[in-house]
Amino acid sequence: MARAEEKDTGRLEAFSDGVFAFAITLLALDVKLPHLAGQEAEASAASLLNGLRHDWPNYLAFITSFFSIFIMWVHHHNLFRLVRRVDTRLLFANGFLLMMVTVVPFPSAVAAEYFRTPAAPAACAFYAGYFVFVGLAFYLLLLAALRRTVCSSKLTNETLHRYRAGYRLGPPIYFAASVLAYVSPWLTMGICTALWIMWAAMTRMTATESSL
Amino acid sequence: MARAEEKDTGRLEAFSDGVFAFAITLLALDVKLPHLAGQEAEASAASLLNGLRHDWPNYLAFITSFFSIFIMWVHHHNLFRLVRRVDTRLLFANGFLLMMVTVVPFPSAVAAEYFRTPAAPAACAFYAGYFVFVGLAFYLLLLAALRRTVCSSKLTNETLHRYRAGYRLGPPIYFAASVLAYVSPWLTMGICTALWIMWAAMTRMTATESSL
Amino acid sequence: MARAEEKDTGRLEAFSDGVFAFAITLLALDVKLPHLAGQEAEASAASLLNGLRHDWPNYLAFITSFFSIFIMWVHHHNLFRLVRRVDTRLLFANGFLLMMVTVVPFPSAVAAEYFRTPAAPAACAFYAGYFVFVGLAFYLLLLAALRRTVCSSKLTNETLHRYRAGYRLGPPIYFAASVLAYVSPWLTMGICTALWIMWAAMTRMTATESSL
Amino acid sequence: MARAEEKDTGRLEAFSDGVFAFAITLLALDVKLPHLAGQEAEASAASLLNGLRHDWPNYLAFITSFFSIFIMWVHHHNLFRLVRRVDTRLLFANGFLLMMVTVVPFPSAVAAEYFRTPAAPAACAFYAGYFVFVGLAFYLLLLAALRRTVCSSKLTNETLHRYRAGYRLGPPIYFAASVLAYVSPWLTMGICTALWIMWAAMTRMTATESSL
Repeated sequence: MARAEEKDTGRLEAFSDGVFAFAITLLALDVKLPHLAGQEAEASAASLLNGLRHDWPNYLAFITSFFSIFIMWVHHHNLFRLVRRVDTRLLFANGFLLMMVTVVPFPSAVAAEYFRTPAAPAACAFYAGYFVFVGLAFYLLLLAALRRTVCSSKLTNETLHRYRAGYRLGPPIYFAASVLAYVSPWLTMGICTALWIMWAAMTRMTATESSL
Repeated sequence: MARAEEKDTGRLEAFSDGVFAFAITLLALDVKLPHLAGQEAEASAASLLNGLRHDWPNYLAFITSFFSIFIMWVHHHNLFRLVRRVDTRLLFANGFLLMMVTVVPFPSAVAAEYFRTPAAPAACAFYAGYFVFVGLAFYLLLLAALRRTVCSSKLTNETLHRYRAGYRLGPPIYFAASVLAYVSPWLTMGICTALWIMWAAMTRMTATESSL
Repeated sequence: MARAEEKDTGRLEAFSDGVFAFAITLLALDVKLPHLAGQEAEASAASLLNGLRHDWPNYLAFITSFFSIFIMWVHHHNLFRLVRRVDTRLLFANGFLLMMVTVVPFPSAVAAEYFRTPAAPAACAFYAGYFVFVGLAFYLLLLAALRRTVCSSKLTNETLHRYRAGYRLGPPIYFAASVLAYVSPWLTMGICTALWIMWAAMTRMTATESSL
Repeated sequence: MARAEEKDTGRLEAFSDGVFAFAITLLALDVKLPHLAGQEAEASAASLLNGLRHDWPNYLAFITSFFSIFIMWVHHHNLFRLVRRVDTRLLFANGFLLMMVTVVPFPSAVAAEYFRTPAAPAACAFYAGYFVFVGLAFYLLLLAALRRTVCSSKLTNETLHRYRAGYRLGPPIYFAASVLAYVSPWLTMGICTALWIMWAAMTRMTATESSL
């Protein structure tokens, strides 16, 4: 029985890993060859380097999206180390999160493309607003995963409480960041960057917890 | 011997999971940056929001396709929990289903693109008609999986019967929905949506069965 | 020790399965929405159905490629059931095969696109010619996999011999089919189709062998 | 405890394998049907063969990228055979390497596209320069993987030392190759090719080590 359940958890993790791995690899499709305006046969070193330099917002959006999805994978990974059984609610909470994860390149591209235009406040509000829902999806997954019928019985109430408290922070802060885009797009992107660093730091914390 | 067979089932499941995970992630490629008509350097917040709003059928088709494939994965997952051995017939039935699954975004896109045009009846008939074949593929997989030589010996005849009865419903209802598109495309899409909710609800039922 | 080796084989199989699964799913990207010539808002049912009908060579190429890759996966799968250890030669033989597999959609598309043009002989010769190399890659993999230091010790010399004989047939027959394209492209495609059916039938044979 | 840790390593390997497998399969998207200039219905055998021949730098870039990523996968694979535990530092070192791997097709395409233009020195310097960072990522992963708290306790200090010495060579040689592009692009590509052969040969060496 215990083995069948472990296999079951394993298959959900494998499916999720597949989605995370493909979503993160698909990002590289946007890192493309700069197509020079003139004849390519006459391309000079200067025009190639200019082309590469001109595409820097693309590269930045790639790196940001890559690390966003990677950090989300690490959190997902740590969360599932606590799970011992899969039920329907956990399955659908996981499906909703995966849907949000695969679309992350979209708000990132919107923010990167419009950051230096008059549409910057709207674009950054959209970016931060998207992560309100990602944060919500993570929180729903956490609630589904940390029920007594699903998770490892070795977890103390205190640990469960600490987890919930940590993940509850996400949605309201992203919401505030989204609203503040109309004050300053820079402020929004600064808050989002600070949050990514915080989530990265939290992976260490949750890793320690989940090895208990 | 039992271990070798388990490994074998495992590899078929891993391959299938790869196809499902990849098919579901590829959907996100259609959620693209709205390209504004005017100069992007002059993009205003209003024109960005308009662009985002204008693409809503894309987003709806994405969400629908994502959940279609996700629910099919859950059914596939529950079905394979009953399987103990893989033979050639099961292999090919599974291959046929996987082929149908990878193309699901195509009829979804046809329905989304033409729903508000005079071609709506044809587009919706095509959408529902496609799922006649998906339903058939699932039924063939079920027949291949629930033979005594392949599935877990713990299943009662009654359980096997109930499974077959549930999956036999799909093709004729989708066929009726397809024909009814010439009466009203709204009716077709309503029936299809109702069926998705039914399949989602059935996952809970089959999960309970397969944990027996 | 035996366990570490099994894990090792497992990881190579998982990587190969990933490549097969993605290659097979990527095919669906070519099954696209028909873009009607006129205004889409005025699309009639007839023009949509015409658009769908007009794309049939695409759909045929998709189905052919899907089953080609699927049958190759089954053969790969059956072959690796005999493998107990991975060494450098097997690793690189497998890498070469995977490279050939990922490109299968390309010769299929060439054959589908040019079959009804004066370039049909060249296109079909290219298609069959490509599979000379695929057959070669499979034969090299077989040689690497069925060495005494690598494969299961339970295999008799007779079984090994029968395997080698079966796979040795591929390259020369495909080569003949390639040359015959200049006599008749229909003949070439007929031979290739007959070979696919033969490979599909062989999966049953090899499955029986490898369960010994 | 030992089992949980093994599962943990397994999931990181599975995720990495997914990224490698997907990155290597995506390469095939660039091997496309040659679109002939004239009417396709009048395509002659000569014009098709010309079209295929004209695309050879694409095919070469495909083969090079495929084997680059494949050899990197083998190294990754051999390195993780030594790992017994995953910690945060190893997780992020692995994430950085995966990011570098997914983008490998990009510098390859730049080098292939501009090799026969006046921009060749810049393009080849960019190609070799990219691999300075890939080499660095591998070295960082090696440092993270071969700590006493993470790797198998059976490894001798001498083995660890030999590993570090081997991987330390990469970045400075690629840097020299990058600078030498301004002397001769052919020299740069020759050094890079020689290095790929060396890395391929090293897989045999590291495989032997890691089976100790």
